[in-house]
Amino acid sequence: MAENLTQDERYQRGMKKVAELGATPESSASGMMNVLNSIAPHVTRYSMEFVLGDVLSRPGLDTKTREMLNVAVLTVLQTPIELALHINGALNCGVTRDEVVEIVSQQIVYAGFPIAINGLHVVKEVFDDRDKKGLS
Amino acid sequence: MAENLTQDERYQRGMKKVAELGATPESSASGMMNVLNSIAPHVTRYSMEFVLGDVLSRPGLDTKTREMLNVAVLTVLQTPIELALHINGALNCGVTRDEVVEIVSQQIVYAGFPIAINGLHVVKEVFDDRDKKGLS
Amino acid sequence: MAENLTQDERYQRGMKKVAELGATPESSASGMMNVLNSIAPHVTRYSMEFVLGDVLSRPGLDTKTREMLNVAVLTVLQTPIELALHINGALNCGVTRDEVVEIVSQQIVYAGFPIAINGLHVVKEVFDDRDKKGLS
Amino acid sequence: MAENLTQDERYQRGMKKVAELGATPESSASGMMNVLNSIAPHVTRYSMEFVLGDVLSRPGLDTKTREMLNVAVLTVLQTPIELALHINGALNCGVTRDEVVEIVSQQIVYAGFPIAINGLHVVKEVFDDRDKKGLS
Amino acid sequence: MAENLTQDERYQRGMKKVAELGATPESSASGMMNVLNSIAPHVTRYSMEFVLGDVLSRPGLDTKTREMLNVAVLTVLQTPIELALHINGALNCGVTRDEVVEIVSQQIVYAGFPIAINGLHVVKEVFDDRDKKGLS
Amino acid sequence: MAENLTQDERYQRGMKKVAELGATPESSASGMMNVLNSIAPHVTRYSMEFVLGDVLSRPGLDTKTREMLNVAVLTVLQTPIELALHINGALNCGVTRDEVVEIVSQQIVYAGFPIAINGLHVVKEVFDDRDKKGLS
Repeated sequence: MAENLTQDERYQRGMKKVAELGATPESSASGMMNVLNSIAPHVTRYSMEFVLGDVLSRPGLDTKTREMLNVAVLTVLQTPIELALHINGALNCGVTRDEVVEIVSQQIVYAGFPIAINGLHVVKEVFDDRDKKGLS
Repeated sequence: MAENLTQDERYQRGMKKVAELGATPESSASGMMNVLNSIAPHVTRYSMEFVLGDVLSRPGLDTKTREMLNVAVLTVLQTPIELALHINGALNCGVTRDEVVEIVSQQIVYAGFPIAINGLHVVKEVFDDRDKKGLS
Repeated sequence: MAENLTQDERYQRGMKKVAELGATPESSASGMMNVLNSIAPHVTRYSMEFVLGDVLSRPGLDTKTREMLNVAVLTVLQTPIELALHINGALNCGVTRDEVVEIVSQQIVYAGFPIAINGLHVVKEVFDDRDKKGLS
Repeated sequence: MAENLTQDERYQRGMKKVAELGATPESSASGMMNVLNSIAPHVTRYSMEFVLGDVLSRPGLDTKTREMLNVAVLTVLQTPIELALHINGALNCGVTRDEVVEIVSQQIVYAGFPIAINGLHVVKEVFDDRDKKGLS
Repeated sequence: MAENLTQDERYQRGMKKVAELGATPESSASGMMNVLNSIAPHVTRYSMEFVLGDVLSRPGLDTKTREMLNVAVLTVLQTPIELALHINGALNCGVTRDEVVEIVSQQIVYAGFPIAINGLHVVKEVFDDRDKKGLS
Repeated sequence: MAENLTQDERYQRGMKKVAELGATPESSASGMMNVLNSIAPHVTRYSMEFVLGDVLSRPGLDTKTREMLNVAVLTVLQTPIELALHINGALNCGVTRDEVVEIVSQQIVYAGFPIAINGLHVVKEVFDDRDKKGLS
């Protein structure tokens, strides 16, 4: 029987996933949330209910694997702010720095050198930011 | 019988469309024009003759609708400078701020959350810029 | 106060939106649904709950405008099956054939001639298909 | 002093460029034109006036070089019909088959292996088609 | 000390990786190789030496994880032939069918519903093809 | 008989190609290399061995033509740092400034006005930078 949750229940499930992904040291994350809350609070809510509460909370793949996929895909989509968020998420849930570098650098083959190298710039910025905060 | 305008006539028609789209408060617009005029004046001319004078001046869709489409498409193309220009154009010809937010946020479904959220950042910047200038 | 619907309620709202978008004569739509139902029924459910029930059912833009945006964006994303679906949706909710042609052909400016022309091929296929079925 | 041509004059200049690019043996080209003429004749006219008559007729780069660029760019844009057209155009104005292969295969570095390899499939189809017609 | 292999040694390492990824039941794979061998044998060689011998043979991520990433990325890049190849590769090295469906369907969030759904079509075709051949 | 070079030999061939492409006045190039060397030295090595030593060192197209293609493709891929690098490379090996402008501005037809205009911004920045250093 399929589940039949309310939006609030899905929102709560999303909040648990956020906790699992851990705090990001990056200011860009809170900046992004401020923008969404000020002009498009429904997108914040959908991010919590649908992205985090529905899709990323599905069984079938663990959080660590889902975050590895996100790092690869966001490199290819050329969206550096979201890429930085998910590099932090990946590192917070057990992906190592060396694995992050491998994931992004593998994209030289699939999306070409320029896009992969731009992704590596974002990786470096996140590593530097985490070094300052004493995070792994 | 098909029209047979000269380039100057099409340029003039483009200028009328520019006036209809209204002045943009954004400095990026004039910056863009300065760059084009200094190294590629033919692109400025094509923008006026072809983009504004030919395509956007066609009958069949009103300017407001054409600008709504442009806001959606430029979100998806990830070109923030042009997106800001057309958000201003849309607002100047009668699209409301709430409609702009809906147009961009709808792209979470079609182009994914990261690209739509990046578009919402541009929306916020344009709104803030227009607030400073007392524009709707 | 924000709404707090269950998934079933959102699914029902999505079904109403499907009815509003009208039946598509195209076999690709039912083919797509068969594929999703056989291997990824959760994606069918999200399409109904989230895409149709949440996002496309939002107030702020009428269905006709939302479908015009979708035709533009799906041209640019180069996804012909979904483009055909939404051309049908647009025509079913009051967009004219001439408007569809304008929406797609305007993308010669923003996404370039090749991608816009490929979109016009899809438009032609949908028009031909509807002609056979006596649809406007 | 800038030129000030009529649309008909630009159309004629476009026709000369078409002649220079030579006949394509491919049926897809005439199929594309039939589609455009039946639902969007203004796009056919813009293709002749603006693409061929304005941009591709500019001085500053010879036709052969412009066609080499088009083969590279259309590989990356993943538009196989237009790519086939311009591979034929390139071969008709003096680019060799080996050069076409180099141009497309170089994109393994910039757009990744999958997109470049898909481009090479189109190259093979054009070569086979030209072999049947005894073209170089 | 960095390794200093010859091209032949890297080619051999690539061949081992091919064996690890297992035979694909799909004819498109051999079709692709035939095209490359006939007009661009250097691309076949680079695929073996560089893609399979260098990048995919790196330590730091196991083959199963690398193939999961490839399935996600190739969905987003809209390259169905290569996607089918790597879905087969993933299944051959221990990724389950349910995991493949999760990987592709997660892209509804990041690349949007149309592109993710198109990826699921390719998944279905590969599953059907493997069913006929009695593969898991 | 196919060549069978070691990685070091390919690296050396890549270094020769770098010399041919000339020094870039841009700090972004050395910044990029610093990032790669610090977290992903294998990508630096692949850039030298594979990109510069294998692909760009192939016979069949001269360096000037290869760089013209790169300027076109990197405009379309929307990767401004790499675009700036290859505009410098093109100018250093004999492409004129006017040719660079033509190459980028031609993309208004194929990738649309916004992406081509963004490329022209990068062109202007490179020209300004080279003016300061007295480079052609």
